[in-house]
Amino acid sequence: MRYEEFTIEGRNAVIEAFRSGKTIDKVFILDGCQDGPIATIKREAKKQDTLVKFVTKERLEQMSETGKHQGVIAYAAAYEYAEVEDMLKLAEEKGEPPFLILLDNIEDPHNLGAIIRTANLAGAHGVIIPKNRAAGLTAAVARTSAGALNYTPVAKVTNLAKTIEGLKKQGLWFVCADMDGKPMYQLDLKGPIGLVVGSEGDGVGRLVKEKCDFVASIPMKGDIDSLNASVAAGVFAFEIVRQRLL
Amino acid sequence: MRYEEFTIEGRNAVIEAFRSGKTIDKVFILDGCQDGPIATIKREAKKQDTLVKFVTKERLEQMSETGKHQGVIAYAAAYEYAEVEDMLKLAEEKGEPPFLILLDNIEDPHNLGAIIRTANLAGAHGVIIPKNRAAGLTAAVARTSAGALNYTPVAKVTNLAKTIEGLKKQGLWFVCADMDGKPMYQLDLKGPIGLVVGSEGDGVGRLVKEKCDFVASIPMKGDIDSLNASVAAGVFAFEIVRQRLL
Repeated sequence: MRYEEFTIEGRNAVIEAFRSGKTIDKVFILDGCQDGPIATIKREAKKQDTLVKFVTKERLEQMSETGKHQGVIAYAAAYEYAEVEDMLKLAEEKGEPPFLILLDNIEDPHNLGAIIRTANLAGAHGVIIPKNRAAGLTAAVARTSAGALNYTPVAKVTNLAKTIEGLKKQGLWFVCADMDGKPMYQLDLKGPIGLVVGSEGDGVGRLVKEKCDFVASIPMKGDIDSLNASVAAGVFAFEIVRQRLL
Repeated sequence: MRYEEFTIEGRNAVIEAFRSGKTIDKVFILDGCQDGPIATIKREAKKQDTLVKFVTKERLEQMSETGKHQGVIAYAAAYEYAEVEDMLKLAEEKGEPPFLILLDNIEDPHNLGAIIRTANLAGAHGVIIPKNRAAGLTAAVARTSAGALNYTPVAKVTNLAKTIEGLKKQGLWFVCADMDGKPMYQLDLKGPIGLVVGSEGDGVGRLVKEKCDFVASIPMKGDIDSLNASVAAGVFAFEIVRQRLL
């Protein structure tokens, strides 16, 4: 995240940002701070479902560049988030079966950016990320997405497992990327699909994985553990492209 | 490149590094510097085929952390390079048709690291990079390769086109990744193969591309130009894996 562009410091500046309708990814508040403006910020954050973190003075000082954070620093999104429904509409408009990419705990902005780029070129109709433990749409993400953020909608949801449940009712099938899965070439990935990719360290979380219809793997030959998350997402996404071309 | 570990500053230190057999990626010499030790460094660099760059005093000052560069700074490789012949031997030992990945002008260490990681997991027998205009095996590369650098040999060659020519005589076919190519699914990629991937900006250079037997593309649907180079390499590499599994 480039500091100059996407960090907002100080009580009034943060309240202003909320009220102007800016998408705020996270708010860091000095632990124990309870006065009026801080209460307003907490209320606004709750209204917009923004993640609030209570941190020590040292942490805030470290994050601050102006030195005038007054106990609060907000991270604003560089781009606006979309709604999941918009993605289904987009698929419908294009006359294609929906193809969504869901990311569980991808915290690295370069991976997120590269995956949005891949989503665009693989013809996915959107990328869904969880509100918690995910990189936001920051400048670094925008940069690595190489412009794809302007075309491919990204939605942020509170609970990935619940979103999957809802989308299943709308006819989507979910495939979870995991090393324990069936080789992806043996699965039928042609229908309306949600591809769920996890972080390199932890993979897809248990609760999310249990909601998926299939678990698919990339056949691996090597000595090390796993592919880079954005490479794995790319290999899976283009297997879906390949099957849809058949 | 983490400064502390892989930069060598000062005349004696650099001469020492050369003589101890360390792999030096690049030497930066103050433009116009002509004395004895500098002549020795140039001679050693020539012997080991190390890239020499003549730079301004300001540039050297900027690169230096000790402030004692004495007109010369060298970048040393974190890992030793392999020979192309070693890769062919490795394939033979494994009883597999050779599968090499050649990179043209991949200058981003994160991309290089991710591609080495992919090469390992796709079962490639090695990665070949050109001496000029390529990221060296630095700490950043080692880190992003997630350990793959310990298993997958990487060779550095003076002329990629000549290396391809030589390998063709040994029975390898070369496929160049390029947007103008035939969809990769329509090509037979099962035999002894060299996959040539270029940088995101420039793609594979003309001279190198002309040496290739096929030009293959990933079918793209989106609005933007190209995949991240390491994602593209991954998608191609696993198409080769898929075809070999058939």
